[in-house]
Amino acid sequence: MKLWDKGSSPDEKTDLFTVGNDRELDLLLVKYDLQASRAHARMLGKIGLLTEAETADLVREIDALMDEEAAGRFTIEAGFEDMHSKIEYLLTEKLGDTGKKIHTARSRNDQVLVALQLYLKDALSDVQHQVRMLFDRLLELAEKHQAVPLPGYTHLQVAMPSSFGLWFSAYAESLIDDVYLLEAARRVADQNPLGSAAGYGSSFPIDREFTTEALGFETMKYNVVAAQMGRGKVERTAATALAAVAATLGKLAMDICLYMSQNFGFVSFPDKLTTGSSIMPHKKNPDIFELIRGKCNLLQAVPGQLGLLTTNLPSGYHRDLQLTKDLLLPAVENLKSCLEMAHTSLGEIQVREDILDDPKYDYLYSVDTLNQRVLEGVPFRDAYRDMAAAIADGSFSPVKGAAHTHAGSLGNLCLDRIADKMAQACADPA
Amino acid sequence: MKLWDKGSSPDEKTDLFTVGNDRELDLLLVKYDLQASRAHARMLGKIGLLTEAETADLVREIDALMDEEAAGRFTIEAGFEDMHSKIEYLLTEKLGDTGKKIHTARSRNDQVLVALQLYLKDALSDVQHQVRMLFDRLLELAEKHQAVPLPGYTHLQVAMPSSFGLWFSAYAESLIDDVYLLEAARRVADQNPLGSAAGYGSSFPIDREFTTEALGFETMKYNVVAAQMGRGKVERTAATALAAVAATLGKLAMDICLYMSQNFGFVSFPDKLTTGSSIMPHKKNPDIFELIRGKCNLLQAVPGQLGLLTTNLPSGYHRDLQLTKDLLLPAVENLKSCLEMAHTSLGEIQVREDILDDPKYDYLYSVDTLNQRVLEGVPFRDAYRDMAAAIADGSFSPVKGAAHTHAGSLGNLCLDRIADKMAQACADPA
Amino acid sequence: MKLWDKGSSPDEKTDLFTVGNDRELDLLLVKYDLQASRAHARMLGKIGLLTEAETADLVREIDALMDEEAAGRFTIEAGFEDMHSKIEYLLTEKLGDTGKKIHTARSRNDQVLVALQLYLKDALSDVQHQVRMLFDRLLELAEKHQAVPLPGYTHLQVAMPSSFGLWFSAYAESLIDDVYLLEAARRVADQNPLGSAAGYGSSFPIDREFTTEALGFETMKYNVVAAQMGRGKVERTAATALAAVAATLGKLAMDICLYMSQNFGFVSFPDKLTTGSSIMPHKKNPDIFELIRGKCNLLQAVPGQLGLLTTNLPSGYHRDLQLTKDLLLPAVENLKSCLEMAHTSLGEIQVREDILDDPKYDYLYSVDTLNQRVLEGVPFRDAYRDMAAAIADGSFSPVKGAAHTHAGSLGNLCLDRIADKMAQACADPA
Amino acid sequence: MKLWDKGSSPDEKTDLFTVGNDRELDLLLVKYDLQASRAHARMLGKIGLLTEAETADLVREIDALMDEEAAGRFTIEAGFEDMHSKIEYLLTEKLGDTGKKIHTARSRNDQVLVALQLYLKDALSDVQHQVRMLFDRLLELAEKHQAVPLPGYTHLQVAMPSSFGLWFSAYAESLIDDVYLLEAARRVADQNPLGSAAGYGSSFPIDREFTTEALGFETMKYNVVAAQMGRGKVERTAATALAAVAATLGKLAMDICLYMSQNFGFVSFPDKLTTGSSIMPHKKNPDIFELIRGKCNLLQAVPGQLGLLTTNLPSGYHRDLQLTKDLLLPAVENLKSCLEMAHTSLGEIQVREDILDDPKYDYLYSVDTLNQRVLEGVPFRDAYRDMAAAIADGSFSPVKGAAHTHAGSLGNLCLDRIADKMAQACADPA
Repeated sequence: MKLWDKGSSPDEKTDLFTVGNDRELDLLLVKYDLQASRAHARMLGKIGLLTEAETADLVREIDALMDEEAAGRFTIEAGFEDMHSKIEYLLTEKLGDTGKKIHTARSRNDQVLVALQLYLKDALSDVQHQVRMLFDRLLELAEKHQAVPLPGYTHLQVAMPSSFGLWFSAYAESLIDDVYLLEAARRVADQNPLGSAAGYGSSFPIDREFTTEALGFETMKYNVVAAQMGRGKVERTAATALAAVAATLGKLAMDICLYMSQNFGFVSFPDKLTTGSSIMPHKKNPDIFELIRGKCNLLQAVPGQLGLLTTNLPSGYHRDLQLTKDLLLPAVENLKSCLEMAHTSLGEIQVREDILDDPKYDYLYSVDTLNQRVLEGVPFRDAYRDMAAAIADGSFSPVKGAAHTHAGSLGNLCLDRIADKMAQACADPA
Repeated sequence: MKLWDKGSSPDEKTDLFTVGNDRELDLLLVKYDLQASRAHARMLGKIGLLTEAETADLVREIDALMDEEAAGRFTIEAGFEDMHSKIEYLLTEKLGDTGKKIHTARSRNDQVLVALQLYLKDALSDVQHQVRMLFDRLLELAEKHQAVPLPGYTHLQVAMPSSFGLWFSAYAESLIDDVYLLEAARRVADQNPLGSAAGYGSSFPIDREFTTEALGFETMKYNVVAAQMGRGKVERTAATALAAVAATLGKLAMDICLYMSQNFGFVSFPDKLTTGSSIMPHKKNPDIFELIRGKCNLLQAVPGQLGLLTTNLPSGYHRDLQLTKDLLLPAVENLKSCLEMAHTSLGEIQVREDILDDPKYDYLYSVDTLNQRVLEGVPFRDAYRDMAAAIADGSFSPVKGAAHTHAGSLGNLCLDRIADKMAQACADPA
Repeated sequence: MKLWDKGSSPDEKTDLFTVGNDRELDLLLVKYDLQASRAHARMLGKIGLLTEAETADLVREIDALMDEEAAGRFTIEAGFEDMHSKIEYLLTEKLGDTGKKIHTARSRNDQVLVALQLYLKDALSDVQHQVRMLFDRLLELAEKHQAVPLPGYTHLQVAMPSSFGLWFSAYAESLIDDVYLLEAARRVADQNPLGSAAGYGSSFPIDREFTTEALGFETMKYNVVAAQMGRGKVERTAATALAAVAATLGKLAMDICLYMSQNFGFVSFPDKLTTGSSIMPHKKNPDIFELIRGKCNLLQAVPGQLGLLTTNLPSGYHRDLQLTKDLLLPAVENLKSCLEMAHTSLGEIQVREDILDDPKYDYLYSVDTLNQRVLEGVPFRDAYRDMAAAIADGSFSPVKGAAHTHAGSLGNLCLDRIADKMAQACADPA
Repeated sequence: MKLWDKGSSPDEKTDLFTVGNDRELDLLLVKYDLQASRAHARMLGKIGLLTEAETADLVREIDALMDEEAAGRFTIEAGFEDMHSKIEYLLTEKLGDTGKKIHTARSRNDQVLVALQLYLKDALSDVQHQVRMLFDRLLELAEKHQAVPLPGYTHLQVAMPSSFGLWFSAYAESLIDDVYLLEAARRVADQNPLGSAAGYGSSFPIDREFTTEALGFETMKYNVVAAQMGRGKVERTAATALAAVAATLGKLAMDICLYMSQNFGFVSFPDKLTTGSSIMPHKKNPDIFELIRGKCNLLQAVPGQLGLLTTNLPSGYHRDLQLTKDLLLPAVENLKSCLEMAHTSLGEIQVREDILDDPKYDYLYSVDTLNQRVLEGVPFRDAYRDMAAAIADGSFSPVKGAAHTHAGSLGNLCLDRIADKMAQACADPA
């Protein structure tokens, strides 16, 4: 957010309005703009639009800028509109006219496109990595607490026996679905758009296969108009995948906030991970999980925001598209922080082992009790009539601990198979 | 929409309120509920909870109902809450107590889950098939009209030369991105949830591998809580993929509506596909594409609607989830109809061949003109100075028809490679 | 939802696609189209475009159709595109050419506009009436149960003493905010658009003041382009107000679903209003409130759906706008049904009176206990130190029942003032 | 956006995660927190919880801080969680224990609530003021260009004669609808929540009438639970009104972007307000209006984002609500900047006067031509037959300039009445 300063001149306001948050956001993209510029320069050398010497100069100076960026020393001062103008300034300062030649046969539009797509490939990979770390933690917790019983609810009503093992690993397996979307989003981003220029290609004989390979893209977005139409779409697809992860994580956070209430009391965390009150010593406010929940809910809005931005825009670049960065980059950062906080916090979760001693949970076992009698050979009708009578006269005695043996049930969590499924879901099995 | 009738009794109103549109929507799902019931019956036979005779009876009667459904004769009358109660009624009518045994070791929740997922697998496959048909049509049109020039716009300003070949195939290649999402959605749906019962599994020793294979699922959603959590999530993932297709199609429709305006006049359709006016004979209203655009925009809202429905619901079934059917099933039908209308209509699109004869498009060639001089060896600065002067004094003479040779450009559409990419994107190469 | 029938001919499909749900939805609008047609006919008579006899004939026949509609006998058969064509058919059948003259100086666009706005005025008024009925019920409940204590939560943690009086009347007062929006939406709809014709007015000297008064509009939307731009905007504003009511109602439903859980046990309902389970006799599933919650959440999406439909459409009518009816009319019906179900059900709510006897709620009183000591003259620091020590050694003895006397607090609910505020919020004080 | 720094310690990360953007956003709210603190201190003095001397000390020091804030010198350093802790620190530094007494009988929750509502009252008033400035400009432009003809489109097809007068004033009148929502949002915000404490009131005998009057609220949110439930709701209602303004402004921006295309060429702006291209001299990219359009579209997502954040949260404060500030405050700033840029830019809009000389617009007059003949006494059928024949044989000669005389039409814009309506819509007629 930029404060809409009442003291600025009209020109300053116009500048503030059109530049927006670009200088700040571009710091996350500089690295990728440099990568793409380096590949573009080498390609121009290959096809003869730059001499060998020019190419070498440009590559060397871009390498130097990449070092600066890696060291955290790249800045975009107020005099520059964005990273592109700053990079051009620096290259021209060093190399004179050669510096300007980097712009041959490309336009700012495809620079942003390619930088965003390279950024997204990394961002989606980072998120996937974090998802797998969270997944691993959940499986560990499921294994560790697999025998600890937990009430299962339907309609928020006490319903059937569950367990911490089932609960933790449910979220783990659910994350695999999100990985399918992360992979789809990665494939959408993993198509080289460089060469689309202003969205209609170039009359220079550029070599897009070269840059595709140099930049490590899986394939090329061939059609240059399609490449340009990727702007907005690539971001939205990525946002969709981020939203999927966020939905799973947000639901877990909701469960935890509820389970931390005194009315449930199923889980707790060390004091450093909760917020207390000096005069209400019983309170352990789950602020971290409330914020994870809130932030994850907001992340679910991002695809829709991107949709609103692009809906009914005819093909071809429009300046509106500049604003996708304002949505996407913070979304990535926010999801990463939520994943890390969840991972760290879950490392310290404490589960209550005696929950089901409370008699209000006895009815959890009514279905198992009935099933047990049926398996013992009692006709269903008789078993049912007996149990209904017992419940009615208060003599119901639940059969606790009936074996649940089928795949994915209380007694057979199939954690190994779930782990295998995740490994297969990830293109990169690392 | 049910009219909220002021004349009903309180009980009728409660019934109307809770049943909602289920009877109508379930007609699309009956087929899948029967498939799943058949597999479940066979599994119960296999594990000995049904006798061989009972199993045979159930399978036979379910087969008969499948025939009825296939013939369009399955109905759900007002006395039944939904398809499940109608099917149970019919089986019990035929088989007495054996009919009721079909419900052993399952619950209505996992019946709906498995039916919805089987439905979605088919629906996503149908949509993917239609997407490929549209894709093929677009490639045909691109090939047919590849040499017909079209102005390329940025910021809605006349910018660079484009072509109908580029424009049609841009939408084709863009659809491939959507197929990545369709495939992801299919994988999310392609995990057998049957056996989750009320969301916490069963104490009966059910054989979920058997039903997974019998129903043709790629894998199982192992964890029963995860399977139940799939409710809402499976639908949302599917809706996300439908929305992606819709976004691409909606954008194409916007282009067409614009290009049909007298201010563009780029494309037209036979009268039967437009709406005229008896007293404004020049008007050819693009109603079909306006409706495609509008419906596709609404389809983009569906993931968000599903998100709102499920946000902050703790784990476990809630009745709210019944409403996902109200969103998802019409979304599938609407997208199918949009895809079919687009496919049919594009078969009759007429393109104008002389668009660029209008001098307002001359400036399209300024970049090509400059590039041409540079390729001829004129230093950029000199070429630029000359052209700027020519433009200023009105003597600018555009170099039209400069070769665009690089991959994905005007002169090198790479239609074969785009077709290959689509083929690889589809799990089923058919 | 129309099933996208694979057996239809191309022309039938085009018809199905373009007509959509109009025939069904229009049944809700016929009444208003007739009202507007009647006023339009009288206006045409007044300015001399119809003779007195023609005017009288048209008015008489429209009156007859209004009687038919009121009696529930107006139908729109498949041969007609919508209500407009059916009405025209009926008038022409009766009056020959005079029947067609009703269309002089108007277009279908402003017919729909004016009918929708008249419909919305009634719909918003109905909803406001229902909101007031719910408000009255909540105030009654607040008064009846004002002394029954309830735990107050923050972060879902037990926090401060509350009461059913406070809880019920909180939702009542919160509804007043929604009435402000209902009133704003009513004002937006209460501007006569009739006369905008196709969106650019007419060269006939029509008398819009006459129709404004005849139709009971508060004012006119003067500018004919603005009137046409109202399409989409009027609906969205109304949807915004409906969404506000829905948000309040949905939150109440969430509270009730939570409070019905065995882990809270604060409220209950007679069996006919809950769904039980034959084998889990403790379960009282809050299906009605879950569906209110779900439907209300979906209602909150409607403004955004309308936004997506209209975003980036330039001024002037587009066929996309036909689809607003598909969103708005069901939204009105759904909200009405939710309001009625909530009103009816709350009439039978049962509250538990001994909730706070459970010692887990003792800490609710820590702040009151401290305040009490301070009011008795003990310095805060001393009071705090003593209480902290008592809590630490388990000797904490809460001061229950400290008076809360300030406006709007436990002991001073200000129900009369809240009722006054509602009365003032409603333009119509009835 | 905070970068999720990989180098931070766990505690720093937790801090970064929970504090979020509060320090930055709170700078916009400090002024209002100080106002509310001042009123609260005076009230505590009045009811005897502070001595006269303590009250005077607090008021004096708060006044000093208000001066600092007004001078732009109030800062919130990294050591402080938010404005509240900084203010407390400063007061305690000056006044010792007296500084801490400001917190008697209130909680951070109601501090934020009251500050946000005071902020919103100002923000909504500012926006309304800017809307009126834009409204005035549009009316001026309508008057100035009232006679300049413009094609009117339906379905993006050339349809009926319009004018710049009609077009400009259409947006003006449309803004009045948005003012109805701004007023509703103001009323929702204009209810004093102070005194709700943690959401359940206080056992101290606070005087809420006093603070209501001291802070200039129109009324009080009586019920303390309702006051707390205002968190989220007040913001959403405001966001709804901002979104309404944004929708109108965004539509105007879309029209302008389209009309600046060479395919329309209806309006233009001086070079400083457009972005050109050094080698495409004909291009005048409408970046400012594209960004207005994009930003306004994103503003329309904000109510939905707030909805997602609060959906299905039971009553009582949750930390998620902290995030509403992240959405609302930038939304206000963004809308203000869009309104200002639109106002400034429209001051320099240039309209083309000879648009309709282009024969492609001749058919605009077909309806008028027909109406003219009818008014001259020619039977409609004859007039229609003649015109259809003329159109068919190319001899159609449009009657241009037929008088449009009815209210709100081309020839009778009713600008005065529109201005009156706006004046009445604003509670404050200034």
